[in-house]
Amino acid sequence: MELKLEEAIEILERTPGILTHFLSGLSEGWLQNREGENTWNAEEVVAHLIEAEKMNWLPRLETILQDGETRPFPPFDRFAHLKISNQNSIEEKLQEFKTLRVQNIEKLNHLVDPELHFELTGIHPEFGSVKLRELLSTWVVHDLTHLSQIIRVMAERYREDVGPWANYLGVLKRK
Amino acid sequence: MELKLEEAIEILERTPGILTHFLSGLSEGWLQNREGENTWNAEEVVAHLIEAEKMNWLPRLETILQDGETRPFPPFDRFAHLKISNQNSIEEKLQEFKTLRVQNIEKLNHLVDPELHFELTGIHPEFGSVKLRELLSTWVVHDLTHLSQIIRVMAERYREDVGPWANYLGVLKRK
Repeated sequence: MELKLEEAIEILERTPGILTHFLSGLSEGWLQNREGENTWNAEEVVAHLIEAEKMNWLPRLETILQDGETRPFPPFDRFAHLKISNQNSIEEKLQEFKTLRVQNIEKLNHLVDPELHFELTGIHPEFGSVKLRELLSTWVVHDLTHLSQIIRVMAERYREDVGPWANYLGVLKRK
Repeated sequence: MELKLEEAIEILERTPGILTHFLSGLSEGWLQNREGENTWNAEEVVAHLIEAEKMNWLPRLETILQDGETRPFPPFDRFAHLKISNQNSIEEKLQEFKTLRVQNIEKLNHLVDPELHFELTGIHPEFGSVKLRELLSTWVVHDLTHLSQIIRVMAERYREDVGPWANYLGVLKRK
Protein backbone atom coordinates (compact mmCIF):
# COMPACT_ATOMS: atom_id res chain seq x y z
CA MET A 1 0.00 0.00 0.00
CA GLU A 2 1.37 3.39 -1.06
CA LEU A 3 -1.42 5.47 0.47
CA LYS A 4 -0.53 7.76 3.35
CA LEU A 5 -3.20 10.15 4.59
CA GLU A 6 -0.95 13.23 4.65
CA GLU A 7 0.37 12.54 1.12
CA ALA A 8 -3.13 11.99 -0.23
CA ILE A 9 -4.13 15.34 1.24
CA GLU A 10 -1.16 17.01 -0.48
CA ILE A 11 -2.81 16.22 -3.83
CA LEU A 12 -6.40 16.84 -2.71
CA GLU A 13 -5.54 20.30 -1.39
CA ARG A 14 -3.67 21.28 -4.59
CA THR A 15 -6.35 20.40 -7.14
CA PRO A 16 -8.53 23.53 -6.77
CA GLY A 17 -5.50 25.79 -7.12
CA ILE A 18 -4.18 23.90 -10.14
CA LEU A 19 -7.58 24.18 -11.82
CA THR A 20 -7.90 27.87 -10.97
CA HIS A 21 -4.44 28.57 -12.30
CA PHE A 22 -5.25 26.69 -15.48
CA LEU A 23 -8.84 27.78 -16.19
CA SER A 24 -9.38 31.20 -14.63
CA GLY A 25 -9.41 33.87 -17.32
CA LEU A 26 -8.96 31.35 -20.11
CA SER A 27 -10.77 32.20 -23.33
CA GLU A 28 -13.96 30.45 -24.41
CA GLY A 29 -12.24 28.60 -27.24
CA TRP A 30 -10.30 26.57 -24.68
CA LEU A 31 -13.03 26.34 -22.05
CA GLN A 32 -15.76 25.16 -24.40
CA ASN A 33 -13.71 22.69 -26.43
CA ARG A 34 -14.83 19.03 -26.40
CA GLU A 35 -13.49 15.76 -27.77
CA GLY A 36 -16.80 15.06 -29.46
CA GLU A 37 -20.49 14.58 -28.72
CA ASN A 38 -21.35 13.44 -25.21
CA THR A 39 -17.93 14.40 -23.88
CA TRP A 40 -17.28 17.06 -21.28
CA ASN A 41 -15.65 20.42 -21.69
CA ALA A 42 -13.43 21.82 -18.92
CA GLU A 43 -16.30 23.68 -17.28
CA GLU A 44 -18.43 20.52 -17.12
CA VAL A 45 -15.52 18.65 -15.54
CA VAL A 46 -15.36 21.28 -12.79
CA ALA A 47 -19.14 20.95 -12.30
CA HIS A 48 -18.69 17.17 -11.96
CA LEU A 49 -15.93 17.67 -9.37
CA ILE A 50 -18.29 19.94 -7.39
CA GLU A 51 -21.03 17.28 -7.46
CA ALA A 52 -18.59 14.61 -6.32
CA GLU A 53 -17.43 16.84 -3.48
CA LYS A 54 -21.05 17.20 -2.33
CA MET A 55 -22.47 13.76 -3.05
CA ASN A 56 -19.70 11.23 -3.35
CA TRP A 57 -16.55 11.28 -1.23
CA LEU A 58 -17.66 12.46 2.19
CA PRO A 59 -21.11 10.83 2.13
CA ARG A 60 -19.47 7.49 1.28
CA LEU A 61 -16.72 7.95 3.84
CA GLU A 62 -19.27 8.77 6.52
CA THR A 63 -21.35 5.76 5.54
CA ILE A 64 -18.35 3.48 6.10
CA LEU A 65 -17.61 5.07 9.47
CA GLN A 66 -21.20 5.08 10.70
CA ASP A 67 -22.81 2.05 9.08
CA GLY A 68 -20.01 -0.17 7.83
CA GLU A 69 -21.50 -2.84 5.59
CA THR A 70 -25.02 -2.56 7.01
CA ARG A 71 -26.10 0.04 4.43
CA PRO A 72 -24.79 0.51 0.88
CA PHE A 73 -23.33 3.84 -0.20
CA PRO A 74 -25.79 6.60 -1.04
CA PRO A 75 -26.22 6.81 -4.82
CA PHE A 76 -23.96 9.09 -6.85
CA ASP A 77 -24.96 10.10 -10.35
CA ARG A 78 -21.85 10.74 -12.42
CA PHE A 79 -23.93 12.74 -14.88
CA ALA A 80 -25.86 14.83 -12.34
CA HIS A 81 -23.92 17.97 -13.23
CA LEU A 82 -25.26 17.76 -16.79
CA LYS A 83 -28.86 17.65 -15.58
CA ILE A 84 -28.71 20.25 -12.82
CA SER A 85 -28.67 23.68 -14.33
CA ASN A 86 -25.56 25.36 -12.94
CA GLN A 87 -25.65 28.93 -14.17
CA ASN A 88 -22.54 29.92 -12.27
CA SER A 89 -19.60 31.25 -14.26
CA ILE A 90 -16.41 29.22 -14.44
CA GLU A 91 -14.87 31.57 -11.87
CA GLU A 92 -17.77 30.91 -9.48
CA LYS A 93 -17.54 27.16 -10.06
CA LEU A 94 -13.80 27.19 -9.32
CA GLN A 95 -14.45 29.08 -6.10
CA GLU A 96 -17.26 26.72 -5.11
CA PHE A 97 -15.04 23.70 -5.72
CA LYS A 98 -12.25 25.23 -3.64
CA THR A 99 -14.59 26.03 -0.72
CA LEU A 100 -16.08 22.53 -0.72
CA ARG A 101 -12.67 20.91 -0.96
CA VAL A 102 -11.27 22.87 1.97
CA GLN A 103 -14.30 21.87 4.08
CA ASN A 104 -14.00 18.22 3.04
CA ILE A 105 -10.29 18.02 3.87
CA GLU A 106 -11.09 19.44 7.29
CA LYS A 107 -13.75 16.77 7.78
CA LEU A 108 -11.40 14.08 6.50
CA ASN A 109 -8.71 15.12 8.99
CA HIS A 110 -11.27 15.23 11.77
CA LEU A 111 -12.95 11.91 10.99
CA VAL A 112 -10.24 9.55 9.82
CA ASP A 113 -7.41 8.05 11.81
CA PRO A 114 -5.41 5.83 9.41
CA GLU A 115 -4.57 3.25 12.06
CA LEU A 116 -8.15 2.90 13.21
CA HIS A 117 -10.13 3.39 10.02
CA PHE A 118 -8.21 2.56 6.84
CA GLU A 119 -9.29 -1.10 6.80
CA LEU A 120 -12.96 -0.41 7.59
CA THR A 121 -15.34 -1.46 4.84
CA GLY A 122 -18.58 -0.37 3.24
CA ILE A 123 -20.79 -1.65 0.44
CA HIS A 124 -20.39 -0.12 -3.01
CA PRO A 125 -23.62 -0.70 -4.99
CA GLU A 126 -21.66 -2.23 -7.85
CA PHE A 127 -18.36 -3.58 -6.46
CA GLY A 128 -19.59 -4.81 -3.11
CA SER A 129 -17.21 -4.59 -0.16
CA VAL A 130 -14.63 -1.80 -0.43
CA LYS A 131 -12.17 -0.40 2.10
CA LEU A 132 -12.05 3.15 3.35
CA ARG A 133 -8.42 3.39 2.17
CA GLU A 134 -9.50 2.36 -1.35
CA LEU A 135 -12.14 5.09 -1.36
CA LEU A 136 -9.56 7.63 -0.24
CA SER A 137 -7.00 6.53 -2.86
CA THR A 138 -9.74 6.75 -5.48
CA TRP A 139 -10.59 10.32 -4.45
CA VAL A 140 -6.97 11.29 -5.24
CA VAL A 141 -6.78 9.41 -8.53
CA HIS A 142 -10.20 10.76 -9.53
CA ASP A 143 -8.75 14.28 -9.22
CA LEU A 144 -5.78 13.24 -11.36
CA THR A 145 -8.08 11.58 -13.90
CA HIS A 146 -10.05 14.77 -14.40
CA LEU A 147 -7.00 17.03 -14.50
CA SER A 148 -5.64 14.70 -17.15
CA GLN A 149 -8.96 14.83 -19.02
CA ILE A 150 -9.00 18.63 -19.12
CA ILE A 151 -5.44 18.71 -20.47
CA ARG A 152 -6.29 16.08 -23.11
CA VAL A 153 -9.36 18.04 -24.23
CA MET A 154 -7.24 21.17 -24.63
CA ALA A 155 -4.56 19.33 -26.60
CA GLU A 156 -7.18 17.87 -28.94
CA ARG A 157 -7.83 21.35 -30.28
CA TYR A 158 -4.41 21.47 -31.94
CA ARG A 159 -4.34 17.86 -33.16
CA GLU A 160 -4.20 18.93 -36.80
CA ASP A 161 -2.23 22.10 -36.15
CA VAL A 162 0.91 20.36 -34.88
CA GLY A 163 1.50 18.78 -38.29
CA PRO A 164 4.26 16.15 -38.38
CA TRP A 165 4.92 16.42 -34.62
CA ALA A 166 1.64 14.63 -33.79
CA ASN A 167 3.31 11.24 -33.35
CA TYR A 168 5.76 12.63 -30.81
CA LEU A 169 3.19 14.22 -28.52
CA GLY A 170 1.98 11.66 -26.01
CA VAL A 171 -1.15 13.54 -25.02
CA LEU A 172 -2.51 13.14 -28.57
CA LYS A 173 -2.02 9.37 -28.54
CA ARG A 174 -4.57 8.64 -25.83
CA LYS A 175 -8.32 8.68 -26.17
CA MET B 1 -6.42 25.77 -38.33
CA GLU B 2 -7.35 26.33 -34.67
CA LEU B 3 -4.14 28.13 -33.68
CA LYS B 4 -4.40 31.75 -32.68
CA LEU B 5 -1.28 33.40 -31.27
CA GLU B 6 -3.03 34.99 -28.29
CA GLU B 7 -4.77 31.73 -27.34
CA ALA B 8 -1.54 29.76 -27.65
CA ILE B 9 0.10 32.25 -25.30
CA GLU B 10 -2.73 31.78 -22.79
CA ILE B 11 -1.57 28.18 -22.32
CA LEU B 12 2.17 28.91 -22.56
CA GLU B 13 1.98 31.57 -19.87
CA ARG B 14 -0.02 29.34 -17.50
CA THR B 15 2.22 26.26 -17.53
CA PRO B 16 4.87 27.49 -15.05
CA GLY B 17 2.20 28.52 -12.54
CA ILE B 18 0.32 25.23 -12.90
CA LEU B 19 3.55 23.30 -12.31
CA THR B 20 4.48 25.45 -9.33
CA HIS B 21 1.06 25.04 -7.82
CA PHE B 22 1.28 21.30 -8.32
CA LEU B 23 4.89 20.51 -7.39
CA SER B 24 6.09 23.18 -4.98
CA GLY B 25 6.25 21.79 -1.46
CA LEU B 26 5.15 18.33 -2.57
CA SER B 27 6.75 15.46 -0.67
CA GLU B 28 9.52 13.31 -2.14
CA GLY B 29 7.27 10.28 -2.52
CA TRP B 30 5.31 12.12 -5.20
CA LEU B 31 8.21 14.00 -6.75
CA GLN B 32 10.48 11.00 -7.13
CA ASN B 33 7.90 8.51 -8.36
CA ARG B 34 8.44 6.95 -11.81
CA GLU B 35 6.50 4.64 -14.09
CA GLY B 36 9.49 2.30 -14.34
CA GLU B 37 13.11 2.22 -15.46
CA ASN B 38 14.14 4.85 -17.98
CA THR B 39 11.06 6.95 -17.33
CA TRP B 40 11.08 10.45 -15.90
CA ASN B 41 9.94 11.63 -12.52
CA ALA B 42 8.24 15.03 -12.15
CA GLU B 43 11.50 16.81 -11.41
CA GLU B 44 13.12 15.42 -14.57
CA VAL B 45 10.14 16.55 -16.62
CA VAL B 46 10.66 20.09 -15.34
CA ALA B 47 14.38 19.85 -16.20
CA HIS B 48 13.38 18.77 -19.73
CA LEU B 49 11.00 21.72 -20.06
CA ILE B 50 13.87 24.04 -19.03
CA GLU B 51 16.15 22.52 -21.69
CA ALA B 52 13.45 22.89 -24.34
CA GLU B 53 12.93 26.51 -23.34
CA LYS B 54 16.65 27.17 -23.84
CA MET B 55 17.46 24.96 -26.80
CA ASN B 56 14.32 24.12 -28.73
CA TRP B 57 11.44 26.55 -29.22
CA LEU B 58 13.06 29.94 -29.64
CA PRO B 59 16.20 28.72 -31.44
CA ARG B 60 13.99 26.92 -33.97
CA LEU B 61 11.60 29.82 -34.31
CA GLU B 62 14.49 32.20 -34.90
CA THR B 63 16.00 29.81 -37.46
CA ILE B 64 12.76 29.89 -39.45
CA LEU B 65 12.59 33.69 -39.30
CA GLN B 66 16.27 34.28 -40.13
CA ASP B 67 17.23 31.40 -42.40
CA GLY B 68 14.01 29.81 -43.65
CA GLU B 69 14.85 26.51 -45.30
CA THR B 70 18.51 27.37 -45.97
CA ARG B 71 19.69 25.90 -42.67
CA PRO B 72 18.14 23.04 -40.67
CA PHE B 73 17.09 23.57 -37.06
CA PRO B 74 19.83 23.50 -34.45
CA PRO B 75 19.90 20.08 -32.78
CA PHE B 76 17.84 19.47 -29.65
CA ASP B 77 18.65 16.52 -27.42
CA ARG B 78 15.48 15.35 -25.68
CA PHE B 79 17.59 13.59 -23.07
CA ALA B 80 20.05 16.43 -22.40
CA HIS B 81 18.53 17.14 -18.99
CA LEU B 82 19.49 13.62 -17.86
CA LYS B 83 23.12 14.14 -18.83
CA ILE B 84 23.63 17.67 -17.58
CA SER B 85 24.00 17.67 -13.84
CA ASN B 86 21.30 20.03 -12.58
CA GLN B 87 21.81 20.28 -8.84
CA ASN B 88 19.08 22.86 -8.39
CA SER B 89 16.19 22.01 -6.11
CA ILE B 90 12.73 21.52 -7.55
CA GLU B 91 11.83 25.03 -6.30
CA GLU B 92 14.81 26.50 -8.16
CA LYS B 93 13.97 24.55 -11.30
CA LEU B 94 10.36 25.79 -11.21
CA GLN B 95 11.60 29.35 -10.85
CA GLU B 96 14.10 28.91 -13.69
CA PHE B 97 11.41 27.52 -15.97
CA LYS B 98 9.11 30.43 -15.14
CA THR B 99 11.80 33.03 -15.84
CA LEU B 100 12.75 31.44 -19.16
CA ARG B 101 9.11 31.10 -20.20
CA VAL B 102 8.33 34.76 -19.47
CA GLN B 103 11.35 35.82 -21.53
CA ASN B 104 10.42 33.51 -24.39
CA ILE B 105 6.82 34.74 -24.54
CA GLU B 106 8.16 38.29 -24.72
CA LYS B 107 10.41 37.29 -27.61
CA LEU B 108 7.57 35.44 -29.30
CA ASN B 109 5.33 38.50 -29.09
CA HIS B 110 8.13 40.68 -30.37
CA LEU B 111 9.22 38.44 -33.25
CA VAL B 112 6.05 36.87 -34.64
CA ASP B 113 3.24 38.51 -36.55
CA PRO B 114 0.71 35.78 -37.38
CA GLU B 115 -0.25 37.31 -40.73
CA LEU B 116 3.35 37.68 -41.87
CA HIS B 117 5.04 34.67 -40.32
CA PHE B 118 2.72 31.74 -39.59
CA GLU B 119 3.23 30.13 -43.00
CA LEU B 120 7.02 30.56 -43.05
CA THR B 121 8.92 27.28 -43.13
CA GLY B 122 12.12 25.76 -41.82
CA ILE B 123 13.81 22.38 -42.06
CA HIS B 124 13.32 19.91 -39.24
CA PRO B 125 16.21 17.39 -39.25
CA GLU B 126 13.77 14.48 -39.30
CA PHE B 127 10.47 15.73 -40.78
CA GLY B 128 11.81 18.12 -43.41
CA SER B 129 9.79 21.24 -44.14
CA VAL B 130 7.67 22.48 -41.23
CA LYS B 131 5.71 25.68 -40.75
CA LEU B 132 6.24 28.23 -38.02
CA ARG B 133 2.60 27.79 -36.97
CA GLU B 134 3.16 24.04 -36.59
CA LEU B 135 6.17 24.69 -34.36
CA LEU B 136 4.13 27.08 -32.25
CA SER B 137 1.18 24.66 -31.93
CA THR B 138 3.65 21.95 -30.93
CA TRP B 139 5.12 24.14 -28.20
CA VAL B 140 1.64 24.36 -26.65
CA VAL B 141 0.83 20.65 -26.99
CA HIS B 142 4.31 19.76 -25.69
CA ASP B 143 3.45 21.64 -22.47
CA LEU B 144 0.17 19.73 -22.26
CA THR B 145 1.92 16.42 -22.96
CA HIS B 146 4.29 16.89 -20.07
CA LEU B 147 1.62 18.17 -17.67
CA SER B 148 -0.33 15.05 -18.56
CA GLN B 149 2.77 12.89 -18.03
CA ILE B 150 3.38 14.28 -14.53
CA ILE B 151 -0.24 13.61 -13.57
CA ARG B 152 -0.06 10.07 -14.97
CA VAL B 153 3.13 9.34 -13.04
CA MET B 154 1.48 10.53 -9.81
CA ALA B 155 -1.63 8.42 -10.41
CA GLU B 156 0.49 5.34 -11.07
CA ARG B 157 1.53 5.38 -7.43
CA TYR B 158 -1.98 4.44 -6.31
CA ARG B 159 -2.72 1.92 -9.08
CA GLU B 160 -3.05 -0.95 -6.61
CA ASP B 161 -4.45 1.18 -3.80
CA VAL B 162 -7.69 2.12 -5.57
CA GLY B 163 -8.82 -1.51 -5.58
CA PRO B 164 -11.97 -2.17 -7.66
CA TRP B 165 -12.19 1.44 -8.89
CA ALA B 166 -9.14 1.00 -11.16
CA ASN B 167 -11.26 0.33 -14.27
CA TYR B 168 -13.20 3.56 -13.77
CA LEU B 169 -10.22 5.87 -13.52
CA GLY B 170 -9.16 6.95 -16.98
CA VAL B 171 -5.71 8.13 -15.98
CA LEU B 172 -4.79 4.54 -15.04
CA LYS B 173 -5.85 3.16 -18.42
CA ARG B 174 -3.19 4.94 -20.44
CA LYS B 175 0.48 4.08 -20.57
